Amino acid sequence: MKRKITLKQIAKELDVSVSTVSKSLKDSKEISKDTKEKVKAFAKLYNYKPNNIALSLKNRKTKTIGIIIPEIVHHFFTTVIRGIEKIAGDRGYNVIICLSNNSFDKEVLNLEFLANGSTDGFIMSVAKETQQKEDYHHIQEVISQGMPVVMFDRVIDEVICDKVIISDKHGAFEAVQYLIDHHCKKIAIISTVDYVSVGKLRTSGYKEALIANDFEIDEDLILKIEDVDHSEEKIEEFLKEKKIDGLFAVNEQFAVNAIKALTKLKKRVPEDVSVIGFTDGVVSKSFIPSLSTVNQHGEDMGAKAANLLIDRLENETEEQSFQTTVLDTSLIIRDSVRK
Amino acid sequence: MKRKITLKQIAKELDVSVSTVSKSLKDSKEISKDTKEKVKAFAKLYNYKPNNIALSLKNRKTKTIGIIIPEIVHHFFTTVIRGIEKIAGDRGYNVIICLSNNSFDKEVLNLEFLANGSTDGFIMSVAKETQQKEDYHHIQEVISQGMPVVMFDRVIDEVICDKVIISDKHGAFEAVQYLIDHHCKKIAIISTVDYVSVGKLRTSGYKEALIANDFEIDEDLILKIEDVDHSEEKIEEFLKEKKIDGLFAVNEQFAVNAIKALTKLKKRVPEDVSVIGFTDGVVSKSFIPSLSTVNQHGEDMGAKAANLLIDRLENETEEQSFQTTVLDTSLIIRDSVRK
Repeated sequence: MKRKITLKQIAKELDVSVSTVSKSLKDSKEISKDTKEKVKAFAKLYNYKPNNIALSLKNRKTKTIGIIIPEIVHHFFTTVIRGIEKIAGDRGYNVIICLSNNSFDKEVLNLEFLANGSTDGFIMSVAKETQQKEDYHHIQEVISQGMPVVMFDRVIDEVICDKVIISDKHGAFEAVQYLIDHHCKKIAIISTVDYVSVGKLRTSGYKEALIANDFEIDEDLILKIEDVDHSEEKIEEFLKEKKIDGLFAVNEQFAVNAIKALTKLKKRVPEDVSVIGFTDGVVSKSFIPSLSTVNQHGEDMGAKAANLLIDRLENETEEQSFQTTVLDTSLIIRDSVRK
Repeated sequence: MKRKITLKQIAKELDVSVSTVSKSLKDSKEISKDTKEKVKAFAKLYNYKPNNIALSLKNRKTKTIGIIIPEIVHHFFTTVIRGIEKIAGDRGYNVIICLSNNSFDKEVLNLEFLANGSTDGFIMSVAKETQQKEDYHHIQEVISQGMPVVMFDRVIDEVICDKVIISDKHGAFEAVQYLIDHHCKKIAIISTVDYVSVGKLRTSGYKEALIANDFEIDEDLILKIEDVDHSEEKIEEFLKEKKIDGLFAVNEQFAVNAIKALTKLKKRVPEDVSVIGFTDGVVSKSFIPSLSTVNQHGEDMGAKAANLLIDRLENETEEQSFQTTVLDTSLIIRDSVRK
């Protein structure tokens, strides 16, 4: 039997992106006529058949939920998975997980692969690169084929589906308000670049809290980091010349790195600088000083997403409007802040 | 279209285990004639067809690797997945992950599900319950169908396939030898119950190191924990009346809980007690005192497992004997031990 050619191989052969191939085969207006013809001719030549299993199994229920997440070495995502697994198990569903590794192409391929008869629907948090490209055709495609999608954490406004988010902005607001209420006069933030939606929202919460308390927004006190893996040096450099007494970090890693940097710079936490992070990961509790943080309740988020998806799968006939569930965060106060 | 009945539903209807149904349908000698007849009749009545997709797609390559692991909220497993993903990506394979949550039934269902046309082969670490039951028919079955399996970490001697392990015993030996070389006279171990193979091996390494140095083995200094989630109180109680100056823990969680308990008991680490853990997780480095530990090199393990599996998938015609690759551990010395 001749091996079936894949989207990826077509893309490689023609030296175009996976997304271009996928869109060409769907006759998207975004792609030039020339390219579309080339892709279609090639696909025909190699007998490319999209979704051939899906078609034959159209009515078959797999009783399986596909999860697509950006990364796995990340405590928050593992707690969301735990929440999904619990509900899925209780309601008789199987779960399979694929990682995009924050790559747009990989996300497209995963979605295509799992939609091919392996799953009934998806729970997903989109890749960083997908947010950057603002290209969601693959998700739209799956939804238009009749497979429900529930997005969580990093959700996309333009895609119409059920969503579960936390109040990122409000969580950040509360953290910064705590710092202000406890004698912080000069509060910095360590955030991500703006195209990461949660980073942007948490930065907004920080700014709103400052404004609400008649503080001035000083852009010099805002650090936006692109590459999380090499944040340590950036944070140290940033903190070197800042005279701050409060710090809010949009994730656990940044908070831990900030405390390490402050210690190196001979500033005491919390006596000189109060620090609050975001996400209650494994490190926060064990760290010394134990880290005050905004708890995202990942397990609740996963449970809610699974219930939304299964409800939709099991009530196919009823037309229901899509809902966005906003879960509350909660502020956990530990030893990294003045009380 | 009538919904297809699943193994799980048959089990539920007949009030027997999934494993009993699975074995009955395969005419296993372990199951009574009576039960087998009942299961087969029921399956026939509801038109149960095992592996119907797999049969029709026998020659189709999915270019997909299935990973089945016990749990995900566990840094070691996430690093193994990272290693598998890297190699799989480089060699043009997709990866899907299913969790057994340490349940035997779930492992059986996952394996059946993924073998059903979704994957070409498996990389797996077995569930705690599977090790306890010593029931490996589901893995044997998949292998006999011609799907290669590579086991890692928690491997099963009775199953003949490629394996990637670390030298658990040697890693533990080295850790305890370090403690002995650095003036520890009374060394305790916090381990898991014996049916968890890696816990057993690490306990052997501990004992061998003691014997090699003419220490006596004192069973009073050996704590075996079944329920990891509630280890904190057990460890505290255990340490309360022990006069020890060295401690080896078979995982990171036990080591961290031990240090917390020692601190409560007003013993200083490392001045009064030197502590070494196993697995270099996210906590070890950040913990204060930073934790000395046996590094398992999870990413290397995943990479090796992926290469073994893909090599086997791509050289189907060649008969090769199965290999067990033993990766070296390395001891990372940080601040939790006297130097």
